[in-house]
Amino acid sequence: MTLNILFASHTDRWSAYEPHLRRALDGYGLSYSLSTKAPPEDVDYIVYAPNSDVQDFTPYTKCKAVLNLWAGVESVVNNETLTQPLCRMVDHGLTQGMVDWVTGHVMRHHLNVDLWITAQDGDWRAGLVPPLSSDRIVTILGMGALGSACASALKSIGFQVRGWSRRPKVMDTIDCYVGQDGLDAALSGAHMVVLLLPDTPQTNNVLNASTLNKLAQGAVVINPGRGPLIDDDALIAALDRDHLHHATLDVFRTEPLPKDHPFWSHPKITVTPHIASETRPSTAAQVIADNIYRCATGQKLLHLVDRTAGY
Amino acid sequence: MTLNILFASHTDRWSAYEPHLRRALDGYGLSYSLSTKAPPEDVDYIVYAPNSDVQDFTPYTKCKAVLNLWAGVESVVNNETLTQPLCRMVDHGLTQGMVDWVTGHVMRHHLNVDLWITAQDGDWRAGLVPPLSSDRIVTILGMGALGSACASALKSIGFQVRGWSRRPKVMDTIDCYVGQDGLDAALSGAHMVVLLLPDTPQTNNVLNASTLNKLAQGAVVINPGRGPLIDDDALIAALDRDHLHHATLDVFRTEPLPKDHPFWSHPKITVTPHIASETRPSTAAQVIADNIYRCATGQKLLHLVDRTAGY
Repeated sequence: MTLNILFASHTDRWSAYEPHLRRALDGYGLSYSLSTKAPPEDVDYIVYAPNSDVQDFTPYTKCKAVLNLWAGVESVVNNETLTQPLCRMVDHGLTQGMVDWVTGHVMRHHLNVDLWITAQDGDWRAGLVPPLSSDRIVTILGMGALGSACASALKSIGFQVRGWSRRPKVMDTIDCYVGQDGLDAALSGAHMVVLLLPDTPQTNNVLNASTLNKLAQGAVVINPGRGPLIDDDALIAALDRDHLHHATLDVFRTEPLPKDHPFWSHPKITVTPHIASETRPSTAAQVIADNIYRCATGQKLLHLVDRTAGY
Repeated sequence: MTLNILFASHTDRWSAYEPHLRRALDGYGLSYSLSTKAPPEDVDYIVYAPNSDVQDFTPYTKCKAVLNLWAGVESVVNNETLTQPLCRMVDHGLTQGMVDWVTGHVMRHHLNVDLWITAQDGDWRAGLVPPLSSDRIVTILGMGALGSACASALKSIGFQVRGWSRRPKVMDTIDCYVGQDGLDAALSGAHMVVLLLPDTPQTNNVLNASTLNKLAQGAVVINPGRGPLIDDDALIAALDRDHLHHATLDVFRTEPLPKDHPFWSHPKITVTPHIASETRPSTAAQVIADNIYRCATGQKLLHLVDRTAGY
């Protein structure tokens, strides 16, 4: 029996993904047809990007799973036509890229690299040795695949690392917090906070005037997660009154960030264009093929989205 | 019997070290006298900074050990009046600081942070996602306490890490090289090189026109070790012909680096004022007290300098 697999994404992704998907599916010895067009009633699996043309899942009557190409599912999870199982992307390339980006920007702020890049005026500023990472608290909000990998890397460098998540989590050498009381405790006195939560109604504005106030004076906010996690006005106010030292933001409520948005010109904000990490076709294709093989052989799907939790 | 301990360093260090040294020595229950002045013939131990007034060790006839406060010993190791055992400083605060600095600058170059700090002009530069750390080779020259700690941290983030040292070294998951052939192999195709070798006649100009040529096109040089490890003219030439992308230098043949030195104004060089790491009084005092206690109770001194090897 041939499996009909529909690749539903922007057309420019097809050339990037096709060879990797075929290689991974061939590796399982599956009989399949893979294409960007197929009669909906014939499709067994949809490899899916939320910005694709497929927005009505109703005609895909025999579809066994929708396999998301993106780590974030907020733009598909509330689609009421979607009754099939939905899987998140958990790609080790994406995870590695996020570890790199988060570690890099944590270290940048820890060492005050911005100062040194510009202080090339011949003035020997002796004595400006930074504190040790072991004297700094980094709090990670969101301890899924990305958050816990970042927590491990930062811990292995030397930081004091706290993690906060909705579901209780246990990790060696990381102080894990849960719930609203846990949120206050996790943020209290932290020198940096990294946002890696999913975008859900519960996480909207998780960083607001009140929670920002819990951070240590001079703290740094790093957001490679999702734009709506931050109350933008409260962030700017906290920067302007010097409670916060800096914010480095990779994600925004509107992307691309409009040219006239105050984030661009704020001297204490670094904007990066949603580049913290991305799914890599070579590693992501294997994750997709793994799940198709599992489902086709009667095993449980991996990385299933909890539709009521929203991630 | 009271141990006479002379603290021989710049006077401003005395107030920083005295309370920590007393606390650490008291912790061992030793009977001691600790001061910045003592008749040389009475001194049992010298806590020593190479820039102190003590340059002639001849009158210290009953001195059992000279305990260096600095990690580097090049300015004392060739002092012919020094016949007493000499110990290096191996301070975990110094090591942690070096791991922080090296990791931070490796990540800075890996992510091209310099670009993002300045690219705040409202232009959404989508698609400039950096490669993964697992696709980058970082070579560390010098695998002592500092080099091997940096190697471990970079490996735990995700980099391919190579180490090179004079003495053969074995480390899990790090490719270790030794000798001249090993040097060429360690540098060949590396994307970054970090210098953490001691300053000895053998390591002088270890990075020169020939060895710089082994690095990958667009490589980055990071020197938190010692200035004489690099042939300065060869470095500038390699940057100017675009074989190298950047050099970040914390140490120099002359420090402070003279205002008119070409490193300051070179667009591809970042100068930092010997701040990569420093000995921390709280942790270093414990290392000193440990060694005094060991020697006083007939145990072997730790971190003994091999005077013929020069470190």
